[in-house]
Amino acid sequence: MTMRIAILGAGPSGLAQLRAFESARRAGAEVPEIVCYEKQSDLGGMWNYTWRTGLDAYGEPVHGSMYRYLWSNGPKEALEFADYSFEEHFGRPIASYPPRAVLRDYIMGRIEKSGVRDQIRFNMAVQWVDYNQDTGLFTVTVRDLKKDELVTEQFDRVIVATGHFSTPNAPFFEGLERFPGRVLHAHDFRDACEFSGKDLLLVGSSYSAEDIGTQCYKYGARSVTFSYRSAPMGYDWPETFEERPLLLRLEDDIAHFADGSSRKVDAIVLCTGYQHHFPFLPDELTLRTRNRLYPGDLYKGVFWIDNPKLVYLGMQDQYYTFNMFDAQAWYVRDEILGRVTLPDAAAMRADSEAWLAREEATTSVEEDIDFQTAYVRDLLDATDYPDFNVEAVAALFKEWKHDKQADILGYRNRSYRSVLTGTLAPPHHTPWMEAMDDSLEAFLADREVPQVRRIA
Amino acid sequence: MTMRIAILGAGPSGLAQLRAFESARRAGAEVPEIVCYEKQSDLGGMWNYTWRTGLDAYGEPVHGSMYRYLWSNGPKEALEFADYSFEEHFGRPIASYPPRAVLRDYIMGRIEKSGVRDQIRFNMAVQWVDYNQDTGLFTVTVRDLKKDELVTEQFDRVIVATGHFSTPNAPFFEGLERFPGRVLHAHDFRDACEFSGKDLLLVGSSYSAEDIGTQCYKYGARSVTFSYRSAPMGYDWPETFEERPLLLRLEDDIAHFADGSSRKVDAIVLCTGYQHHFPFLPDELTLRTRNRLYPGDLYKGVFWIDNPKLVYLGMQDQYYTFNMFDAQAWYVRDEILGRVTLPDAAAMRADSEAWLAREEATTSVEEDIDFQTAYVRDLLDATDYPDFNVEAVAALFKEWKHDKQADILGYRNRSYRSVLTGTLAPPHHTPWMEAMDDSLEAFLADREVPQVRRIA
Repeated sequence: MTMRIAILGAGPSGLAQLRAFESARRAGAEVPEIVCYEKQSDLGGMWNYTWRTGLDAYGEPVHGSMYRYLWSNGPKEALEFADYSFEEHFGRPIASYPPRAVLRDYIMGRIEKSGVRDQIRFNMAVQWVDYNQDTGLFTVTVRDLKKDELVTEQFDRVIVATGHFSTPNAPFFEGLERFPGRVLHAHDFRDACEFSGKDLLLVGSSYSAEDIGTQCYKYGARSVTFSYRSAPMGYDWPETFEERPLLLRLEDDIAHFADGSSRKVDAIVLCTGYQHHFPFLPDELTLRTRNRLYPGDLYKGVFWIDNPKLVYLGMQDQYYTFNMFDAQAWYVRDEILGRVTLPDAAAMRADSEAWLAREEATTSVEEDIDFQTAYVRDLLDATDYPDFNVEAVAALFKEWKHDKQADILGYRNRSYRSVLTGTLAPPHHTPWMEAMDDSLEAFLADREVPQVRRIA
Repeated sequence: MTMRIAILGAGPSGLAQLRAFESARRAGAEVPEIVCYEKQSDLGGMWNYTWRTGLDAYGEPVHGSMYRYLWSNGPKEALEFADYSFEEHFGRPIASYPPRAVLRDYIMGRIEKSGVRDQIRFNMAVQWVDYNQDTGLFTVTVRDLKKDELVTEQFDRVIVATGHFSTPNAPFFEGLERFPGRVLHAHDFRDACEFSGKDLLLVGSSYSAEDIGTQCYKYGARSVTFSYRSAPMGYDWPETFEERPLLLRLEDDIAHFADGSSRKVDAIVLCTGYQHHFPFLPDELTLRTRNRLYPGDLYKGVFWIDNPKLVYLGMQDQYYTFNMFDAQAWYVRDEILGRVTLPDAAAMRADSEAWLAREEATTSVEEDIDFQTAYVRDLLDATDYPDFNVEAVAALFKEWKHDKQADILGYRNRSYRSVLTGTLAPPHHTPWMEAMDDSLEAFLADREVPQVRRIA
């Protein structure tokens, strides 16, 4: 009987897995039967923008955390698929920091070209996964959201590609329950225009805080106050920005901070990160980890050591994204196709622990980048995924970090060289701070077209 | 072996069931072992206010739909427990329309007095319920949220008391995805102050729209526009209110309605109702219904006809609330204790269908009230729940409807007579439109104390 594989999620990781098998099939290999379950009505995962927050039309948690006017916060040259360049997709070189719609178009392009869409069952939310020791099979129970019916099927392997930026980590601060204004987690942030003219408090000091803060500034927020737990971000912020230490409590609309200072604010965004959350898995198959470069209990960062028929893709904290998911997916594919053999559990655990120790020994952002580069390199060398100059990508990441540090509002105006095509990206027609229209059409046009209200 | 019962949810319905058994136990009956699973960290269900929206601290959907400054929209005399009057709880008569905190205090008071709290397991979210035909037992799988572990136990009966005002029904309108401001469902509405000075669009024409609209007006919204599907509410609204027919689409921040009119708005609240949602139940045990006075497939409005060991409490559209849940819970208890015997499935179905036909024949609000009154009366007559004058409560509901129609901003200033104690409620110290502090302390004080910002 043909082996059957369930892929949970059709975002960048799940699509990488579909693409990996398709690539083998086209090269003549016999590949398993694959079913990819996707909760949303289209592919792209997080890259599908949704206006919805909280629960979706079917009462399921909304997957998407992306907001309007989101532009990539890293250069596209650092996430380029090694088998499908941006230049191939768009037919010409484009600027280094595209908005969301452009990146989504790129992801979709490779998938449409590969013809794997018919392996995806949309509007199917995974409800429960069980593993039967006797049969060696997984039972996957899925809710068909349109029919409102449960569907159960059996699989030899399960690949979890549901992401880890969907379930908010939202701590309580005293007085939040009486704050007379909006309190939200970054997961529910959608449109910066809502905060025009407002004094904003952003709790957190990582990517969400930094990007939502600059975004709101761009679209008219009056001021942005960040609250950090351990250290300020320290960028060269605009005059209306401040960084304060930990928020202690709120009294009405006054925020009190750990340094004894206080400030009146109109709205609060908790940029306090996300939880790895797998409510559809039994305890013994559930990955439990903070957001880190090398989560434990996974061999090669993907195989669940206690039962390697279960795979987790993309559960790492990420410098590398799309191309790392590819490297993982190709490796997983090769294991499933019998081209790679896993060592015994003890050896897998020893290997995983060596990587963990290595991660824990890093002491700088540069070393973190080098660590993840080494991880990707390790995977790449073992498969036929097109080799690419990972070490050159690492240099790009370091340049990007430097460019951000130098100019937090202007780093997106810079250009980088593709390690695939060697092309240096052309500058965008408009500096990011003045580029108000984030549509694909506006980005690909020759110049910024002033936004016109479409009134009938 | 002692019979075991699982109650899912410790809101008003689940608490009614606990109270019903406790009442029998105190009268000397032998009662089953009861486990009540509650997702939240305290009892009270919807009446627990939470500042959270979307997902809770554990990634579970937030149960609560209540907002700050919410006052009862019906007179307390219509929902009084027949075994525990407001006068008994507060030690004196209080006004007819209390704010949320006061009603919660009342619900909690009866429970604390009855000592059933130790039957409730908090921070336990029901994950899955299965019924085994062979053993005749239910298997209930619950997530212990604090330990992040699954717990499975077996029960003879399962009572679903999870409510039906938690899962938003949120339709899409063209252009919502590009609206430059906040779009939310009423489920996520928390603090009217956020909308001070704003032009609001409220889609819907039922309780949520009416109450969120008047609430926002009270706390400073600039204007309120309602959009209705079938008919306007037709109240005597303030000058800054309007009712328009169905929203067709949005173009940027301009809402277009079915009559060809349009209007610029700053924020949109979808007051479009809720779904009955039971993702923890298999298809064959799942109640599927719109919000109506008599959902199908339930005998006496509570027993799942295809397997009456499964019970649903409070799934009706509601005029009657707390006292109807009591009437249901007492009836269910008596069936479980063997004091009432259910007829065969065909007879149960025939009975249910007769009620459904009767509901469908009603043609006015008054007839709807009479219909639900007859339903409550039917349950009451069969148990030892303290008899109360349901017909007098029906008259109260009709008076309330009349009072609302006469004065939508002032009806909460009126007083009604308790059918239990005969006491006419005293007027509140402050007209509702001027009562800005919704705390229990402010409500029970002699006069409105001006709100002082508590600045350290």
